Amino acid sequence: MSFDLTEGIAVLERTPATFRALLAGLPDGWTAANEGPDTFSPFDNVGHLIHGERTDWIPRARIILAQGTNRRFTPYDRFAQVRESQGKAMDDLLNEFARLRAENIATLRGWNLTDRQFALEGEHPELGRVTLGQLLATWVAHDLGHVAQTARVMAKRYRDAVGPWRAYLPVLNR
Amino acid sequence: MSFDLTEGIAVLERTPATFRALLAGLPDGWTAANEGPDTFSPFDNVGHLIHGERTDWIPRARIILAQGTNRRFTPYDRFAQVRESQGKAMDDLLNEFARLRAENIATLRGWNLTDRQFALEGEHPELGRVTLGQLLATWVAHDLGHVAQTARVMAKRYRDAVGPWRAYLPVLNR
Repeated sequence: MSFDLTEGIAVLERTPATFRALLAGLPDGWTAANEGPDTFSPFDNVGHLIHGERTDWIPRARIILAQGTNRRFTPYDRFAQVRESQGKAMDDLLNEFARLRAENIATLRGWNLTDRQFALEGEHPELGRVTLGQLLATWVAHDLGHVAQTARVMAKRYRDAVGPWRAYLPVLNR
Repeated sequence: MSFDLTEGIAVLERTPATFRALLAGLPDGWTAANEGPDTFSPFDNVGHLIHGERTDWIPRARIILAQGTNRRFTPYDRFAQVRESQGKAMDDLLNEFARLRAENIATLRGWNLTDRQFALEGEHPELGRVTLGQLLATWVAHDLGHVAQTARVMAKRYRDAVGPWRAYLPVLNR
C-alpha cells in the first residue's frame, strides 16, 4: 500500500473533528492524564499535533519540493507543546489545530502533486534520505498514532477500576 | 482511580461522535482494512460496539442490580458483528450505535446509582465474581480500546508507505 493523496487527505481532514469529538468539554481528569514522566496526556497530544502543523509536515514538504542544494529538515521538537500550550484551554487547542490543519490541507491540495513529485527526496536529520510520498504517508499515520495514544492514555485511567477484565483489554497493558 | 459515574458517562456519550468523526464518509480502503484473519476492521469495530450495546453492558448491569439467585452473565460473542453487520453501510452502523448508546446512557442515568450499588456483584462466565463498578469501568475502557484499535488498524495501512519513519511510529509495530 503506497501513499494515495485523495485517501490520505480523507484521513488528515477528519483528525481535528475526531479529537474534538473525543476531548471537547471532557473533565480535566481525562485530558490531563498521562502514562508517567515525559509521556503525553490527551492535552499534550493536541499541542504536539499543532506544533507539527506549524513546523513539520508542510515546511518539510516545501523543502523537498524546492529541491534546493540543502534539503535537510530542521529537527522536530517532540516536547515543544509543553511550552506552547501553556495557559491554553483544550478548546483553544482544538480550534487552533482545526484552523492550521484546514490551511495546510488547502496548501497540499493546491500543489496538485503528481506521482513523480512523490518520489522527490529530502534529508531527515536522523533517518537520512526520505521521499515526499513517505513524508505525507507519515503525516497520516502519525495522526492516527496520536488518536490511538490519546484513547490508550485515557483507558489506562481505569486500569485498576476494571478489576479482572484487565486481562481482556490489551489497551491497558501496552 | 475507581469508576466515577459522571466522568465515565462523559466518555461513553462521546464515543459515537468520535467514531463518526473518524469514519463517516471515509473511503472503503480505510474502513475495510484489518490486521489479518480474525481481526477487526474499523467497520467491524463499530459493529462490535453495537453488539455490546444490545447484549453486554446494560443487560449485565441489570443482572447485577436484580441480585437474583442466578447472577451469571450470558457469554459475549466477539464475532457477532460478522453476521449482524452484513449488508449494512458504515453510516447505518454509526447511526445505530449512536441511537443505542443514547438509549443506554439514558437508562444508566435513570438508575441514579449509589456507591453501595457499585459494589454489588455478578458472575462472569470466565472471570468469576465482578462488581457493577468494574463492569461500568470496563464499558468505558472498552470503548477507548476500540478507538485505539480502529486508529491503529488504519495507521498500519501505511506501514510500508512511511519508509524509514516506521522506526518512529510505535503504532505501526503493535
